[in-house]
Amino acid sequence: MIALVDMDGTGRLSLQEFRLLWNKIKQWQGIFRHYSSDQAGIINSYEMRNAINDAGFRLNNQLYDIITMRYANEGMNIDFDSFISCLVRLEAMFRAFQAFDQDGTIRLSVLEWLQLTMYA
Amino acid sequence: MIALVDMDGTGRLSLQEFRLLWNKIKQWQGIFRHYSSDQAGIINSYEMRNAINDAGFRLNNQLYDIITMRYANEGMNIDFDSFISCLVRLEAMFRAFQAFDQDGTIRLSVLEWLQLTMYA
Repeated sequence: MIALVDMDGTGRLSLQEFRLLWNKIKQWQGIFRHYSSDQAGIINSYEMRNAINDAGFRLNNQLYDIITMRYANEGMNIDFDSFISCLVRLEAMFRAFQAFDQDGTIRLSVLEWLQLTMYA
Repeated sequence: MIALVDMDGTGRLSLQEFRLLWNKIKQWQGIFRHYSSDQAGIINSYEMRNAINDAGFRLNNQLYDIITMRYANEGMNIDFDSFISCLVRLEAMFRAFQAFDQDGTIRLSVLEWLQLTMYA
């Protein structure tokens, strides 16, 4: 999780990075609580879509399927830890994209690609 | 680990995918044994560079530093599990790059970027 928000690549979290992450996690916790109120600490994959939307991410169906496959258990439910892992990763990957974004797309050499994907 | 070699995105490993992974792991195990012969089941970060080279990957210094930061312990040593995790990820990320490679670089939209990075 540290690797995902360690934007200056020091291997440590600065106080600023920690505060940013903490505020996001508090916000995501509120969203999770809203959707998990009918069950004990889990949300289903349909609620997961709404929760991701509420967190401000606009994804397509293929991405929702990928996320469900990666983060849900056999019963298609997502627990709090998996939910937070997913959103930390989404946030980090969106930020990484923005850092390289030129015109809505990014162009990467193989070494840039590996630098972005081997640490995360 | 399954996510990293599940190239058809089914969430399962086909027999073919499993065989490919297994053969790679056996090859990497031999490389690890070669460098860990002087210690008990670990290699240091310098041996890690040579091991990655022997596995056929050509990286730059920045990437070796990233990999050490991500996979080595406090003593700058890498155990067998971390070594295999690292090489499985390197292999998967190289293959993902090749699938999009046009002219030595890849161009990705934000949704393509997320599809590649959220599952791995």
